[in-house]
Parts: sequence; structure tokens; C-alpha cells
Amino acid sequence: MTVSTAQRQLTPADAGQRMYALIEELYPICRSITGNGLRETLRRLQTHVPLQIHEVPSGAEVFDWVVPREWNIRDAYVKNSRGQRVIDFRKHNLHVVNYSVPYRGKVSLEELKSHLHTLPEHPDWIPYRTSYYKDSWGFCITHKQRQQLADDEYEVCIDSTLEAGSLSYGEFFLPGESSDEVLIACHVCHPSLANDNLSGVTLATFLAKHLQETRQRLSYRFLFIPGTIGAITWLSLNEQRIASIRHGLVLAGVGDRGPLTYKRSRQGLAEIDRAAAHVLKHSGKKHDLIDFSPYGYDERQFCSPGINLPVGRFSRSQHGTFPEYHTSADNLDFVRPESLAESFEICASILSVLEENATYLNLNPKCEPQLGRRGLYRAIGGPADSGVSEMALLWVLNLSDGSHSLLEIAERSGMRFAALRQAAKVLVEHDLLKECLG
Amino acid sequence: MTVSTAQRQLTPADAGQRMYALIEELYPICRSITGNGLRETLRRLQTHVPLQIHEVPSGAEVFDWVVPREWNIRDAYVKNSRGQRVIDFRKHNLHVVNYSVPYRGKVSLEELKSHLHTLPEHPDWIPYRTSYYKDSWGFCITHKQRQQLADDEYEVCIDSTLEAGSLSYGEFFLPGESSDEVLIACHVCHPSLANDNLSGVTLATFLAKHLQETRQRLSYRFLFIPGTIGAITWLSLNEQRIASIRHGLVLAGVGDRGPLTYKRSRQGLAEIDRAAAHVLKHSGKKHDLIDFSPYGYDERQFCSPGINLPVGRFSRSQHGTFPEYHTSADNLDFVRPESLAESFEICASILSVLEENATYLNLNPKCEPQLGRRGLYRAIGGPADSGVSEMALLWVLNLSDGSHSLLEIAERSGMRFAALRQAAKVLVEHDLLKECLG
Amino acid sequence: MTVSTAQRQLTPADAGQRMYALIEELYPICRSITGNGLRETLRRLQTHVPLQIHEVPSGAEVFDWVVPREWNIRDAYVKNSRGQRVIDFRKHNLHVVNYSVPYRGKVSLEELKSHLHTLPEHPDWIPYRTSYYKDSWGFCITHKQRQQLADDEYEVCIDSTLEAGSLSYGEFFLPGESSDEVLIACHVCHPSLANDNLSGVTLATFLAKHLQETRQRLSYRFLFIPGTIGAITWLSLNEQRIASIRHGLVLAGVGDRGPLTYKRSRQGLAEIDRAAAHVLKHSGKKHDLIDFSPYGYDERQFCSPGINLPVGRFSRSQHGTFPEYHTSADNLDFVRPESLAESFEICASILSVLEENATYLNLNPKCEPQLGRRGLYRAIGGPADSGVSEMALLWVLNLSDGSHSLLEIAERSGMRFAALRQAAKVLVEHDLLKECLG
Repeated sequence: MTVSTAQRQLTPADAGQRMYALIEELYPICRSITGNGLRETLRRLQTHVPLQIHEVPSGAEVFDWVVPREWNIRDAYVKNSRGQRVIDFRKHNLHVVNYSVPYRGKVSLEELKSHLHTLPEHPDWIPYRTSYYKDSWGFCITHKQRQQLADDEYEVCIDSTLEAGSLSYGEFFLPGESSDEVLIACHVCHPSLANDNLSGVTLATFLAKHLQETRQRLSYRFLFIPGTIGAITWLSLNEQRIASIRHGLVLAGVGDRGPLTYKRSRQGLAEIDRAAAHVLKHSGKKHDLIDFSPYGYDERQFCSPGINLPVGRFSRSQHGTFPEYHTSADNLDFVRPESLAESFEICASILSVLEENATYLNLNPKCEPQLGRRGLYRAIGGPADSGVSEMALLWVLNLSDGSHSLLEIAERSGMRFAALRQAAKVLVEHDLLKECLG
Repeated sequence: MTVSTAQRQLTPADAGQRMYALIEELYPICRSITGNGLRETLRRLQTHVPLQIHEVPSGAEVFDWVVPREWNIRDAYVKNSRGQRVIDFRKHNLHVVNYSVPYRGKVSLEELKSHLHTLPEHPDWIPYRTSYYKDSWGFCITHKQRQQLADDEYEVCIDSTLEAGSLSYGEFFLPGESSDEVLIACHVCHPSLANDNLSGVTLATFLAKHLQETRQRLSYRFLFIPGTIGAITWLSLNEQRIASIRHGLVLAGVGDRGPLTYKRSRQGLAEIDRAAAHVLKHSGKKHDLIDFSPYGYDERQFCSPGINLPVGRFSRSQHGTFPEYHTSADNLDFVRPESLAESFEICASILSVLEENATYLNLNPKCEPQLGRRGLYRAIGGPADSGVSEMALLWVLNLSDGSHSLLEIAERSGMRFAALRQAAKVLVEHDLLKECLG
Repeated sequence: MTVSTAQRQLTPADAGQRMYALIEELYPICRSITGNGLRETLRRLQTHVPLQIHEVPSGAEVFDWVVPREWNIRDAYVKNSRGQRVIDFRKHNLHVVNYSVPYRGKVSLEELKSHLHTLPEHPDWIPYRTSYYKDSWGFCITHKQRQQLADDEYEVCIDSTLEAGSLSYGEFFLPGESSDEVLIACHVCHPSLANDNLSGVTLATFLAKHLQETRQRLSYRFLFIPGTIGAITWLSLNEQRIASIRHGLVLAGVGDRGPLTYKRSRQGLAEIDRAAAHVLKHSGKKHDLIDFSPYGYDERQFCSPGINLPVGRFSRSQHGTFPEYHTSADNLDFVRPESLAESFEICASILSVLEENATYLNLNPKCEPQLGRRGLYRAIGGPADSGVSEMALLWVLNLSDGSHSLLEIAERSGMRFAALRQAAKVLVEHDLLKECLG
């Protein structure tokens, strides 16, 4: 499965290296579902893709939800009675529970412990925790750190603000020949977690760059949004756009070494589901196809019953199935340029199938046309030279009765989409086939 | 899979013990498809459940059949020339071919043998034979008995009557909130065979007792009928009731040690078929699901093409697949209280699914509702506490678009019906869901 | 699966022997897609079946194709400078590329080689090559022959004609009670290749003889046609007949030792597809069922999208999958009378299913009819005598609601078609069933 011509300028290997470099750049920023870290991240993405940054004010009602107050944090620490920072936000921004309310005070070890989160089974890792919708504060530390805390009086400081502000998200629309849209969405709200989801953010960025380099048939809409509340906000503010979305992909966790994974949309047999299955099947790479379930990332919102868009999810290892998930071990070592390159190549191929899929009508449907006199068939009877392209011609002719798309012909024949696409092109040139429009 | 609250008064283990005791009580009675043994059995069941005993006169035309003359038997024997009873009905009521015509006479050994039935492969067992629709007489004995018969003149006596009378059956109707009915039928015509079908008779009896203890949504109709002719008679006399029957179970052979077995209705995908499959799948017990075939017990009549009710059959070992079938070895040792208890529990669970299955409409279908502010979702992001009930909430919300029942959501999600039922209840309480009626 | 009564006159073993003898007779003739060899072959078939020989003039337009000039050949050779025939058409008619244009001239070894075809991997075999639609000439020889050719000046002679004439094909129509037709087609254009397709030609011939011996319900049309152009020609000239064709079989390569193979029609679930699957499944013989693909023999034309007839293909080893394919090794040793006999038996059985398949209506659909009083059921209850025919009666009664054919009942029940057919016959005789017409 090769990616279309535009990619000559951006090979998968190049893309993988550049995506990794961008992950390195964004990794230190402390993001959340609102605030300056998120805003700063979107601004840096603008140096790659001309995305528009939207701000939705706190308090805005979005379906059943309300846009929360904006959270920003300058510093956070716990000092022992000798004034030493035993927990220090400046060392790792996972140390503070995301969305912790401002707090200053002295607490006993016992009280402190009720605000600490650790991972006993991975004593060197810091967990990632959030408290978006409940006013509370807390720290996340390694289990070893916790075990070293002596009985003492501790000074706690969470120098955060939680105030009226806005929720930021990025949007990039790439118009194509058709108003039919492909939606590509990624959550951009997590702090220093490399795979979840700087990998998805950079994959979306480089797919956008890739598509920009050549004119496309379909229009593309890229969303860089905070998880859950961002998807809900966008859908709530853009209900009239939903009808134009023909296909969609949520990109999340695409940089680790795990198998390529496609999670089907709620519809299950949508064109995106079939395109992804086709590309993965012919990729020769280890992969998993999994059914929709109402858990995971923002496919939960795009596939809610009142929205029900044909939006699947592309990932590598599935969230929650590997120990590094939502811990400090999801770091720059956990993602690999080669994995990112592979994810880029597969997604570009899936989009290429969507771009090029079409349904045709055989203009000579009664018996086969004489391919030989058109130079499309071997002249001397005998074993086929290669057989491949002749078989593609025959399959396209046989099933182009107006009710089978090229992708469906690929499924039935077991042949690669690209070979059938090439056959259809040649047959159109010879006036043996025409595209069914509408 | 737990049975509903009503069962607290009647645990499966209790039910199993009490069913076994009732089997012991009924075992010695010589039943047939008509007659006093059948009538006496129904009367004893009345001490457990207020069933009504119907009498349909001999000669009544019921579809293609005619209710036969009533058969009763006082005694039957074969005496040798020394006046010794070498075959004695008083020792085992399987010794006489059921529905044997009255006969008295002297016969040679050779002639006698033409009226004897044995099981050479199980020389200590007595076979069970009937001759309902052909006037004849005969005896069933062990093969060993037969081998000991000397050349002699034998006196044969079958002190039976075959006269105009009536066919008896028992019916118990338990009205529910809805006029939609569940039909539960068992054949009650066999003489001293414990599993086939005193086990089914007692299971029906105790399910009726169990359902009586609490008000149900559905109505229940229990039929205690002679096999084949009883089902045909009831259907013929109650054609106008057929339209109310929404689900049904035939209970037969439910007390042996074999795997739990559900045989699908002719419809194959009826709600009863899916409910039974769901309960068995999640039971953790050895079980078989088998397709409909037009052989077996009274599902043959309920699933005939002109009736075609969604009636499946619940059994343990399948009839005809074990050597004890239709022999004296189907005795009180062949059925176990534990097996009866398990059958009771599974059937009660199946009925509970039918009772509680419903289709809902998500009242907040665009994106997920904010479960957190309703106290339905963990507050601090991180690994799910248990995940189970949250997943149930999400599945019910996602698929409650008016076209998926809870049972269908259970099938698609792989979750237990009870968990989804609980989630639906909570969501209704929070005005996030409403039941689709009609 | 037994073949119908008519076959008593023609057992499969007889048919196999006689088919083999006919292959021996036809093998030496040099056939092509037009010309006297083809014509002579059809004339010899007329001694077995009264087929009509049609002649379609060169230049006739048939759909996208044109009937080619007629090709005939008297002699062909290559002589060395000593006047010895080093390649001699008289020794094997595969030696000349079929449809070679007339040629006489002297050529160097190098030039000669550009006109030679060999099989290096099988140095003793002669390949079979054609050049129907490109004016060229050539010879096919063993690879050993080629290696022995010395540097020399060679005299080439191809004493062929390629002139306006006609394309010949044979057609035999056997009218039945119904105007619904079964189409049986075989390609008859190949020169000395025994399996491909004298085996198919003789199988078609003997099936025609077999069907002639008794009156059939369906009408049968046998086509003995040159491959591709013959099918296209017939379809083009007989478009108005297409609507009458209900089922069809292409017969090709049916005499080798390989497994029985049925290739489904493009429709995939047509009655012929199901009949063939049923017969093969119950045959107890090694077999393959393969999906339609637009490659192979004339099913390509019959299953083109604008024709789309329910025509499958019956073969043994699949073309192109065995080394002897299209070589001189496809000779009289490659086909066996036993294989031909088996193919005959299977095809006759498939046709028998098509003949006898019907949909019935149970005239007593409410509960089972009382089979016992009609002598159709064992009188004394107990283990079934054989069970088989009773089960067939019960299945036919249960599913004869006007929407299941006997073949569909066979599929659902797992029983043999013949047993169900017999049951239906008996039930019709007892006024319990009637055929649904139309």
C-alpha cells in the first residue's frame, strides 16, 4: 500500500523523525483541558499548520455540560519542616493533580497522605491524575517518595488559579473539491505524556501537512481539542456541520511499539471502517481490529447515539492495557520515530482509499469487452505474465454494476485497492467504465 | 446471574430438595395420557399450586386428532402353569405396555414372547413402551426375566379398561400487569420415570410457586399436559389465546446430571432464545445450545408451522442420547436435588430477563451526559475503580436509541443483563433515560 | 445420492467408459475456435446426440467482438538444411501455434527461435499456445528439441488458411414440461488436450443422452462452443432466450484425478450453487467449493454483469494449478474413466436436485398431523426403527410453510435431499402437502 504522490515530499520515515522532534518540543509543557499550557501548545502547532485557535468562555453551556473555569498553575510543592521541597512541581508536571484548586497550609503527614497518589506496583513511576469537575487538590509521586516521607509537619503550596477564562482548541479546515468532510480529531489536553497524546497530536499535524501539499477531492477538518469537554464543545457549537462529515478518525496513542489498532465506529460497517480494515489487512504488519465500545477517547462523543458519526479510532497499544498508561513512564523513550512513521503511513493510506474510492458502471456489461485489441490483455494465449493487472481489470469490469465501490470489489476479490484503482483508471480512459456520481 | 428478590423465600437449594421430595411422592403412580393416574397426579400438584383440572371427553376432535378412550388399569400379570406370577404389574408399572387392551387367556411361550419387550443390551432394565393408537397388549420385562421363561402354558391377565371417558390436564394462570403471556408446559403422562418427566413437572410447579410470591409484569400460563395429544388438545381449544403468548418454555428432563441444554424455538432468534442463551453463557456452567428440530417434546406442536410460537425447550441430557432414557433406570437415583436446583435457578433467571427486558430512549443523546456531577462517575481521573457499572451506564446510554433492548445491549457489549438493568434503572431515576412503550 | 431411474440404462461406470472412448476418438483432431477440426468434432458428437450445428459468418459483430476469419491448417513444419523435418505438425498438432498465419520462408536459427515456445521446467512436454487475435506464427516444441537445434538455415512452412468463413458451434435443446431452461455449456475449441476439454465435451454429451432417456420437468440446452468467442456469439444472438435460463453449468476439466470442484456463480446463492453444494457435501468424496471470480472458462461471459446468469462451473483440478495444464501432458493418460464416471454421477445428481426441488404447503399446519393412523409412524412407542424417514416427514411438514424449498429444508435439517423428496411425495399422496406453484 503506497501513499499518494504528494508523499514523495514527505516520506513516512521523514514524517516519523519530524513528529518525534515535535513531541520532544511539546513534552515539557504542562497542559490541561484549559489554560496557557494548552494555548501555548496550539501556538507551536501553528508553526506547522495554519490552524485557527478558538476560545470558548467559561460558563458556556455545551449540551449537558458547562465549559469549566480556566486552570493555570505557576508552582506547587510540599516542603518538610526543614524547608526542603520533598515534592516539587518544577521537577515533573505530573506531580500535581491536574486542576488542583489553589491551596496553602500546613498539614500533618497523615493529612498529606490523603492527598497523595502513587503506584505501589511501579514504585519509580508517577501516576497522572486529574480532578476537573471536583474542587480538590493533590499530588502524584512515586511510591518510593511516599515511603520516604517522615512523620513531620509539611508546608503545602499549590499556586494555581481556577478562574473565569476560556477553553481553547485548534481547528484547521482544508477545503477539497467536495464539501464532504473527513474529520480528524486528537486530544491535546494531557501534560507530559508522550504517547497519550503528543503522538496523536503530531500525527494529525503531519497528516495535515501531507494533505496540504496536494489538492484533495475531500475536505478535511482537523481538531486539536481537550478530551471529552473539547469534543462536546465543538459538536455543540457546530451541529450544522455534522451532516457534512462523511468519515472520521480519532488519533490517540500512535507512537508506541504495540500493534496497529483500529477501533470501528459505532456504525461498524462504515466506509472508514472498511478502508481501515483493508489497509491494515494488506499492510503485512501486526494489527488488531476491534469493535466499537462506548469507552476510550473522543469516539465516545462522535459516536454517541444522537451524533452517530462514522468515526473510528486509530491507535497502537490500547489505553489501559499497558502499565505505562497514564504514568510518567509514558515518556520520550516510550514513543519511537519508527512507530510514528508507520502510523503516519497507515493513516495516509487509509485517507488515500477514502479519496480514491468510487463506484463505476461498466459501459460494456454484456460479456467481457475485447481487452486484447485495446492492448490490455496478453496477445499469445498461455500462462498469464503476471496476472495481477488483468485480474484487476476483470474484477472491476465484473462488479462495476453501479452497486459495488472499488473498496467493496477489493474486499470481495481479495486484491489490493491500489491495483483496482489503477485498473479503473485505465478502463475509464478506454471508455469501458464511467464513474457513478451522486 | 441472581434470581429476583422473590427468591429469597425459595432458594434454589430449597427448591431442589422440595422438587426431589415431590418426585418421590409421584413416582409410584401409574400415569398415562388419560386416566386416574394422571388425574391423581394433577390433584396432588394442586396442594402446591392452585391449578385447574380440565377434562376433555373422549372422541373430541382436536385438529387432526381425536381424544382417545380413557385407559385405566387395575392389575396385570403372567402366571406359569404352577400359578406363579412370573410377570407382575404390581412390582413395577412399566411391566405392562401402556394402553394395553384388556386381555385374559392362555398362551404358549412362543405366543407370549411375541408380546414381550426387553432390552438385551441392558439385561436388568425394563423398557417403557406404549401403544396409544393401536389396539394391542404386551409386557415389558428385563432381558434376564425373559431368558428364564421355560416352555410352559402361561395365563395372561391384563385387567385394564379402555372406555369413553376424558383426557385430563392441569392449567394454572398467573395474571401479571400485562396481558402478554409466558407459556410453560410439561408433559405429565409418563408412569414411573423420574427424569422424564416428573423432573419437568416439579420444576414447573416450583417456578409457579416462585412467581406467585411476587407480582410480575408478564402473565404466566402453566400447562401440565399429556405429551402430544395434550398439547394438541390445548392448542385446539385455545386458539384465541395463542396471540397473547410472547414467550414459552417446554420443560422436560431437567433433573439428571447432564449439561444444561436449551433448544431454540423454530423462530430461532426470538427473545426467549436470546434470553436463554444469555443466561446460559453467563452461568459459568456446562451447557449446550441446540437448534430447533421437529423432534423431541411438545415444542413440536407449539412450533408447528401454523402455530409457530416462540417456545424453546429447557432440558439437561437430551432424550434418546443416554441409555436410561425410557427405561426403568430413569428412576429416583437418576435425578439429583442439586441438578433440579440448578435447573430451577437457570429457568428463574431466564424468566427474570424476560420480565425485566425493555427498550429505552436516551434523553440526552448528543454526546455523553455529565455523569460526574450526578455522582455516577469517578471523580478523580485514573484507572477505573471497578469499571463495571460505569461501563454499563455507558453502554446503555450509547445504544438506547429506541432500537436496542437491554438484552441486545447485553449481547453486543458482552456484559451481564443484570448490570445493564441496574444501570438503566439508575439512568431513569436521573431522567437520562425513558422506557419506550409499545 | 442416487441418480434418477433413467440412469438404470446408463450407469456412471458405463458412462465413464463410453466417455473415455469418445475422448480417444476425438483426441487426434486439430480443433480451433473455427475451422474444419471443430466442425468435424461436432459432426462426430451428432452420432451421440442430435445437436444442431450453427455457422456464424466471419465478420459478424457480437457485442464488443467480431467473429474472426476461419482458420484451417493442412501441414506445418520446420526443415533443416538437409531437408529433415525437425518440427513436424503431423507428429503432434500442438506443434503449431493455433491460428498461425500462413508462412513460407527461410530463417536463421536466431530468427526461428523468436517463433518457438517451450517449457524449460518440463523439457519433454510441448506447450499449447494460441494467437487468435494477433497475426503471427509460431511453433511449440519440447525444450529438449529446442536444445538440439543446430546453427543452420531452416525452411519454415505453415500451410494454413485464414479466410472469411464461419464460426461453428453445436446446440442441442431438450424440451421439458416447463419452459424454464438449464444451460450446460462446454468449450470444444482446444486441439489435442484430453482433460481440457474433451472431458467436458463428453460429459455434456453423456448428460444429454442420459436426460433424453426420460421426460424431464425442466428444459435443457447444451452448448458445444469455442471458448470466449463462442459464448459471446451465442449470447449475442440469443439475448431473448436469456430470461428463460434458470440454472446453468459450465463443464471444464472433469476427467483428471483431482477433487470434485464447484465454482459458484456470480450470484453466489443461486439454486444451482446450493444444489451443487448439497450434492458435494453428501457425496462423501473429496471436493472443493470455490467462490466466483471473473477468471476461468465461459462462466466469465455468462456471469458478466449485464448477463448475470446463475451459471456455476463444475471441474475437477482447477485450471492453472497443475503442471499438465495447457501442455501435451494433458493427454489420454491424464484422464481416467473412473474420474469421468464420478463427474457424470455428481452432475446427474445436481440436475436431479434441480428437477425435483419444489416448495410445498403443509395442509395441516396446526400441530402435527396424526401420522400413525396413516401408517406413516411407528405404532409402538420406543426407540425409532430407523428414524430417518420419520425425521424427513417431520422436517418437511414443519418447514413447508410456502417459504422453504426442499433444498432449503435439506440445508437446515442436514438431511439428504432425496430423503426429503421421498417424504414430500408420500405426504402429497396422503393429502397432507401440496406443491406451491409459480
